[in-house]
Order: sequence, then C-alpha cells, then structure tokens
Amino acid sequence: MDNIESKLKIIPLGGLEKIGMNITVFEYEDSIIVVDCGLSFPSDDMLGIDLVIPDVSYLKENIDKVKGFVITHGHEDHIGALPYVLKDVNVPVYGTKLTLGIIENKLEEHKLTGKVKLKVVKHGQTINLGAFRIEFIRTNHSIVDSAALAIFSPVGTIIHTGDFKVDYTPVFGDAINLQRFAELGKKGVLALMSDSTNAIRGGFTMSERTVGRTFDNIFAENTDRRIIVATFASNVDRVQQIVNSAYKYGRKVVVEGRSMVNIIGTANALGYINIPEGTLIDIEQLKNYPDERTVIITTGSQGESMAALSRMASNLHRKVSIDQNDTVIFSSTPIPGNEKAVSRVINELSVKGANVIFQDTHVSGHACKEELKLIYSLVKPKYAIPVHGEYRHLKANADIAKELGIDKDNIFILSSGDVMELSEDSACVTDHIHVDSILVDGLGVGDVGNIVLRDRQSLSQNGVIIVVLTIDRLNCELLAGPDLVSRGFVYVRESEDLMEEARSMVYEEVMICLNNNISDWTKLKSVIKDCLSEYIWKRMKRSPMILPIIMEV
Amino acid sequence: MDNIESKLKIIPLGGLEKIGMNITVFEYEDSIIVVDCGLSFPSDDMLGIDLVIPDVSYLKENIDKVKGFVITHGHEDHIGALPYVLKDVNVPVYGTKLTLGIIENKLEEHKLTGKVKLKVVKHGQTINLGAFRIEFIRTNHSIVDSAALAIFSPVGTIIHTGDFKVDYTPVFGDAINLQRFAELGKKGVLALMSDSTNAIRGGFTMSERTVGRTFDNIFAENTDRRIIVATFASNVDRVQQIVNSAYKYGRKVVVEGRSMVNIIGTANALGYINIPEGTLIDIEQLKNYPDERTVIITTGSQGESMAALSRMASNLHRKVSIDQNDTVIFSSTPIPGNEKAVSRVINELSVKGANVIFQDTHVSGHACKEELKLIYSLVKPKYAIPVHGEYRHLKANADIAKELGIDKDNIFILSSGDVMELSEDSACVTDHIHVDSILVDGLGVGDVGNIVLRDRQSLSQNGVIIVVLTIDRLNCELLAGPDLVSRGFVYVRESEDLMEEARSMVYEEVMICLNNNISDWTKLKSVIKDCLSEYIWKRMKRSPMILPIIMEV
Repeated sequence: MDNIESKLKIIPLGGLEKIGMNITVFEYEDSIIVVDCGLSFPSDDMLGIDLVIPDVSYLKENIDKVKGFVITHGHEDHIGALPYVLKDVNVPVYGTKLTLGIIENKLEEHKLTGKVKLKVVKHGQTINLGAFRIEFIRTNHSIVDSAALAIFSPVGTIIHTGDFKVDYTPVFGDAINLQRFAELGKKGVLALMSDSTNAIRGGFTMSERTVGRTFDNIFAENTDRRIIVATFASNVDRVQQIVNSAYKYGRKVVVEGRSMVNIIGTANALGYINIPEGTLIDIEQLKNYPDERTVIITTGSQGESMAALSRMASNLHRKVSIDQNDTVIFSSTPIPGNEKAVSRVINELSVKGANVIFQDTHVSGHACKEELKLIYSLVKPKYAIPVHGEYRHLKANADIAKELGIDKDNIFILSSGDVMELSEDSACVTDHIHVDSILVDGLGVGDVGNIVLRDRQSLSQNGVIIVVLTIDRLNCELLAGPDLVSRGFVYVRESEDLMEEARSMVYEEVMICLNNNISDWTKLKSVIKDCLSEYIWKRMKRSPMILPIIMEV
Repeated sequence: MDNIESKLKIIPLGGLEKIGMNITVFEYEDSIIVVDCGLSFPSDDMLGIDLVIPDVSYLKENIDKVKGFVITHGHEDHIGALPYVLKDVNVPVYGTKLTLGIIENKLEEHKLTGKVKLKVVKHGQTINLGAFRIEFIRTNHSIVDSAALAIFSPVGTIIHTGDFKVDYTPVFGDAINLQRFAELGKKGVLALMSDSTNAIRGGFTMSERTVGRTFDNIFAENTDRRIIVATFASNVDRVQQIVNSAYKYGRKVVVEGRSMVNIIGTANALGYINIPEGTLIDIEQLKNYPDERTVIITTGSQGESMAALSRMASNLHRKVSIDQNDTVIFSSTPIPGNEKAVSRVINELSVKGANVIFQDTHVSGHACKEELKLIYSLVKPKYAIPVHGEYRHLKANADIAKELGIDKDNIFILSSGDVMELSEDSACVTDHIHVDSILVDGLGVGDVGNIVLRDRQSLSQNGVIIVVLTIDRLNCELLAGPDLVSRGFVYVRESEDLMEEARSMVYEEVMICLNNNISDWTKLKSVIKDCLSEYIWKRMKRSPMILPIIMEV
C-alpha cells in the first residue's frame, strides 16, 4: 500500500437530490472533516413530515477519523441538522462568532448546551484538523459572518465558497476578501466548489445597501402611517438597515416572531448589529406610541401560516391588528413553492386596507453569473465542482466554468453519495455510497419511511374504508359485522344508500367464503378488498384505502 | 311596485374568493343572463379533489328567468363548469365560433352533444336576450376569438372586457376594437368590468408576435438539434407561430398531448390556424425523420405530472425520449403554485442533457396597467367593477380607476354572492346570497364537503390508528381485542414495542370500564380515544386520527 499515493476523497452526503442538506465529507487517509450540516424542509409528497436531515451512517462508521464540522454560515440549510447529528457524531464544531452563536441557540433548544465543543474561528485564521489545514476567508451573504473555506490538503488546495455574493459595500464588516482568493489562485488551487444558486441569473447581485435606500424612500413617503416590515429572521444586515431608517425618521422599533427575536438577540449580544439606545421597544409598549412613530420588524415573509405576519393578517395576533393606516413591506422574495402562501397573506393584508409594498425591497444573497466569472477568474482552479442548487443551477455554473476555459472533463456535478477521488493531477468519481434522507416527524427521527408516506398520500386523496367482522374461529361462523366505517371518503349521511349497498355486497362475499369453509383470513381479506374497491371504482371512480379487519372469537 | 323604478342586479357567483370560477349573473326584472361559467382547480387544502365548480342554486331557483349563457372566450376558467351546470340549467349558450367549438368538445366528453343549444355570434354582432341586448366586441387574449361584451340594459350600458390585452399586431385576426370601446364610451357607459389579472404590473403587455421572433432566433441557432416546445394547449396563436418557424426552417411538426391535439384539431377545422400541407406529421412518423428536421409541440408547460412533457422528461413517454440533442423551450410562465413542478421537469430534462430555454419565449394574455388606463380612458364609465384576479389585483385595478378620475365611491370590489343593484344614477351592494363551492371528486359532484376534507387533512399528516374490540353485549365481556391497526402512522415493524405498549394500555382502560359495567359504547370509545391520543402525543408529539370500533356479539 505504501507506494500507492493517497488520494483526497470528497463525498457530498446531501446537496443535489437533497437540496438544503448541505453536508460534505473531505477525507484523506485517517482524517475526515465535514463542511456544513444542513437540513431541508419536506417536499410536497412528504406528508406530515417536519424536517429532513442527512444520513450520516458514513460518519458513524468512520467516527475515529472525524476531526470536526467546519461551518460556512448560520443558515438552516448549513447548520440545521447539527443538533440531530451531533448526538451520534459528537466532534468539535468550527465557525465564525455569529455562526456559532446561532448554533449555540439551537443546541440549547435541544438541551445539548455544554455537551458539544464549539470553537470560534476568525476570518483569515487557519485551523489544523488532522491532515487538513482550513482557512476561513471572508465573504458576503444574506447573513453576516459568512465564510469561504480554503482547505489545504496533501494533494492540493480546495476552495469551498459556501453561499456567497460579492458586495463591495456591505452593511456590516468588510467586503469579500477578493485579494485572498486571487493570492490562493496564483499559488494554485486544485478545485473550486462554488455556490450555484443564482448561476442561471445574468449580471451581478446588487449590494445590500441598495435596499437601505429603498427603505429610506418608503419611510419618507409614509410618515403618517405605521410601517411593518417582514423579512428573513437571519438577515441581520436587513434588520440593521430598517433600524437605521427607523432611527432617522424618529420611530421606535419592535422585533416580533420567535426566530427573529432569537437571532437579533444573539447578533446584538455579539456586536453584529447596532441599535441606538431607546430605539428598541417591547411589543407590550406599542400601544404607548402613535402608529406613525413605530416600525414592526417581523417574521412571516414567506407566508408561513404560523408566523407573526400571517397571524396579524388573519386577525389572530394578540398585539397587532392591521388596518388602512398600515404600510406592509415584504423585504424578501418567495422561495419557490411559497408563492401562493405569500399571495394569500398579501390578499388578507389588502382586504384590511393595508398598503403592501414588495418591489425593490430585497436583494439576493447569492452570486449571479458575473460574480461567478469573477471568482473563477481569480481562483483559476484545475477542477470545478459546482455546489448548492438544483441540477439546472449546477449545470449553469458548470457552463460558466467551461466558458472560462476549464476543460469540460474537469468539471464535476456530484450526486449525493458520489465518492470523488482527487490527486494532484487527477480527479474521478470512483464510487458511490448509499445515503438516505432521514425524516423527522414530531419526536420521531427516521421512524417514517416510504411505506408510511405512501399510505398518507393514499389516505389524503381518497380517505379510508374500514371493514370489520368478528368470526367464530371454530365454526367459521360470522358473529358480527361486516361493519363499514369510513373517514375522508364521503359525507356519510348523504351517502347512506351507497354504504349500505356496499355493506350487503361485502356480506354476501364473506358468506360465500365462509360457506366454502375458507378459514384463511388473508384470503378472506383480499376478497373483501377486491370486491369493495371494484364496487367503489365503478360507482364513483375513486380508490379509497380499504382496510379489512377480522376479529376471531 | 309599479312606480318603483326597476334596477339591474349584478351577482358574481364565483370570482373573488373562488378564483377561476368566473360566472356572473345579470338580472333585470324577469330576465337573467349569465356571463361565463368557469371552473377552478382545487387549492392545496382540498385534498383529493379534481375540480371545483360554482354553486348555481340561484339560477335553479330562477330558472324561468334565465335566457342563456354568454361566453367571452374558451378558457377553462370561463367555460369549464358548463358541462356540469347545463345538466341543471339547460339554456342556450352564446359565443364566438372557436369558443363554441371548444365547448362542443367538452359537451361531447360529457355525452351532452345535441342536448344543448349552442349559438355562434360574430364580433360586432348583437343578440337579444329578454331585457338585454348584448354586443360582442373583438378583443385580444392568449386564445383567439375572445370577446368583450357590451350589455345594453334598461338602466344603461355595462361593458365586460372578459380576459383581454391590447395587441396592435395580433397573429390571427384583427386587433382589439378600440374604436368601438371609444364609441360606446362617448355614448355613455354606466359600468366597466375589466380584467385585473395583470393590474399590478406596470407598462404594456408585449404583442404575441414578439414571441414569434424569439422562436425564429432559436430555430436559427438550433439547426442541428431537435426542438421541443411546451406551451398552453389553448394558445392557438402560439402554436401557429411555432408552425411558422418550423415551416421556415424545413421541419415537420408533431402535436402531442390530448388537450393540445383536441384544441388544435378544432382550431384547424374551424380555420383559426393555418398549417401548410405536409408540415404536420403523426407522432408515429417521428422516427422516419432526423431529429433536426422535427419539432414537437407539447402540453406540460406547467410541470403537470401526467402531461406529455413530464412523461418525456422522466422516460415514461412511449414515443419520445430526451437526450443531449434536444432543445426544449418552455413557452409559458408557471402559474402561481406550479413553480416547483416546473423546476422539477427542467431539472429532469437538464440531467438528460437537454438544453432548456425559458427566457423571452412567452408573453401574457392580460392587460397591464397602461392598457387598463387606455380602456378606462376610452370607455369613461360612471362605475368601475374590477373583475378577474385575487383581491390585490382587483385593488390595483381599483387604484387605476381612481387615478383616472373615477370617484372612489363609484368603484366596487364584489365578493362572490354580493348583489349589486344599479340604476341610471346609483349603484350599491344591497344584499348577499350564500354561494358555495361544489367539489368534484371522481364521479361525485358535491358529495365531499368540509368534514371529509378535514379528515383527509388529518389522515395525510399523521395517519390513522384503528382500535377494534369485540364485546359480548349481554355480559359486558371482552371477547376479542383490542387490536390496533395503523396506516400512515409509523413503520410498524420498527415500532412494535410502542404499539404493544399502547395496546396493553388501551386493554387496561377497557377492562376498567367493563368492570365498572360501562355499557355505553360512546363513552367507551371516548375513553379509548383520549388515553391513546394522550399516550401517542407524550411519546411522539404526533396526533394520528384514532378510530375506536366496537363490535357487539
């Protein structure tokens, strides 16, 4: 083995096919580091599921090698699975100060405080983890304190951008450290893993500061009205700018919504947001100020039905109700899939007379085509591995790499579980490990799988008919039933005839079976199932789930 | 009564709160006409429902007055409920030639051919229906042969635009008859009911012809590849332009997808599309031509999972499979709610190597702000009644009316069931009638209501646990069970302990009841329900539906 050169393995455990679950294994000999540990939200067909977390069997099997988690920034799709995964894979977590502050909140919710080592790393600082040296490089994104990672391995340097954009005039802290990207590029970078989220969009993402100017304009035009701004809880810079406009126009600020209160609290405590004294008031104090002297910054910009804004819109909020004296700003764009929910909230607000504004009040946190070209041009990697996004986004990023001169054989779009092996002068997907998605439903982690989901899907479409009978097992005699009980099928009172007809048909089929001495209940159940579903389909063109239950006495 | 001046009643039976169900009653003394008769598609919470149709109880109660349906154009949200409604309210249907052609197809599917009077009206023509005279005015829209209606009533003229845009250079037929709008406006229009769908968008909707130029460019750039274009089945002009580009570049055209084949067949037969001889080929002939000599025009532009394009993308189509030699054009924008489905299809196509194009390949069929201003300025109505759209769209249209000088007290946003009364110099909502939404599920019309939907919702989230027991009614003795059967709850094999524990807990509770001689089964059921749901919630934070069934022997 000694004379075979070791290779670097890169294995995404989530990512493509499991959007949001950003978690990537870097392995060299007996060292493993893991970049990010995100969760994703259930797709439409995962009925009743709360969260989806990555399958870390590979980490558990190689637990002795795992040196730590290295986190790029504090968004759910990069940190959300940590509280679940750390229970099995308890290794130190490295990240910048705000990122770790947010993680600490999460660990607290899961009663894991003090049980996990959290190690703060500054931008520009380097940590050593086994065979790897990892440098945190400052980037810009829709959450402050985000970082790209330069991962120095024995076979070469890998740069992982995390989620990023290029903001020359950020609200907090410095602009992305383009010089360092250039310097590393000059020295030679083996592979660049860059954010593809906006790779299908032309041009350059606008600076966060442009939104601040829009806020100032809106505040200037609405001096006689209350202003409510809905935005992402984690967008600390956005909140800073709303606070700035509020202060400038002499308004008090209320922060509302649990996640918003948490993150702004953490950001404030750690010095990532600057709120002038006396500006922030508690929601209880709102009634002491005239409407036109207040701003409410709230969660719910995605139309989430339980969030503060939705509750305000539908009169369910205990402290805030909406009227024609309100200007409501959506400082966000709907995440795909949330469009209808957002529309519903806008309609409800409009019906109550509020003036709703959603133009020029948001910028993205992700790099567009021109920014990606800039990064490729500074880094000039040998290999390109687009990350973060759906297939079409990764493909668009790959097309940019190709356009900028990277050989198309040196561009890799990896699926979850692909094992990519890199040496100084080769890169190749050599293997594939099976990785699942672990579904979280209530307190259950992984106890709901495909069969359960298929049943829920079927129940949701057509409901269920339960057929119960009690049989004397000795004489094969029907003692009670068949009784038909349905839920989610038809409104029973209006369909009594149908149900009675179905019942007597089942009765006849059962009697035929029993008279023929069929005492195999599996057979009897399948007879009941078949005749009933055929009958229902013929009569109604529907397929409820049919569940025969036989009790033996 | 004689000296009381009669009024015109306008009653939307759908519309706002029931988007898509466009159906409006116009009533004067003993005459009723109904404008449009659309259906809507189920919202996310209407699990398992296929279609939603309007409640026409009001028409049934006043059947003697109803003179006919007057249809503005052939889209589902304006004609889709006709086959259902005509079964109860069989009156003549008036519309332009293509509109009635499409309706005829529908009636045929519902085996109603010959049972309904369909009467073709030309643009510019006027019909008399009781107290009303109705003129069809040419408009432009994303389906040809659409019309606005001038409804001449004893109290004044109402103009209903239907869905419309202003296209100065339409693909088929003439531009919207702006002169006639102006002429009627000059004579005096009591009320304008205008399309609000795009009222929140600034500017002017581009001409359909601009899409034709994009197609020409794409065809010029893709001479060595097969081209597949997905668009709305009913957009005959769009299909015409694809055919034009195909013919120009020497390609054969295949039309694929049932609804597309139907509508293009009808349009072709009635002379609304011009396909050069030898251009159209059957899908079976596709294999006889090289890829670069063919175009496939297909349904599925909304990502509908059963449509032809989705089947192609997921390798389920029997005649067409996708590879890197395909350029796929989405000539459409996703209807709100369909974004994720469209993304999924784009990803599947991209994975197979297809080049997917979705920019500049679609224009809307609805008037933007500047077009609405034009219509208001030509018609100068006394009253404005925005129609078609969500509340925020109607509100935006109302704001335009106000901006153009209509008194805000003369602008009305009507809810479904509102009864508006108009005279020559007054307008007022005087009453409200109850109108339901009728849910269609399979062959059942109206047999699924709120209780059934609530059950389906609950089943879909947490599944069901059925508890069955057989009891000797005389001795209050447990003969069999309790048996617990679950579906959609947990994967049973991995949760045997949980289920067994739950079972013995239920057993104990049942025994306590029986030992205390509780023979009221309702009481026993509620004991079972309570103890089991409490147990499950404590253990798992889930709330499955719990269904106790007691059999008596």
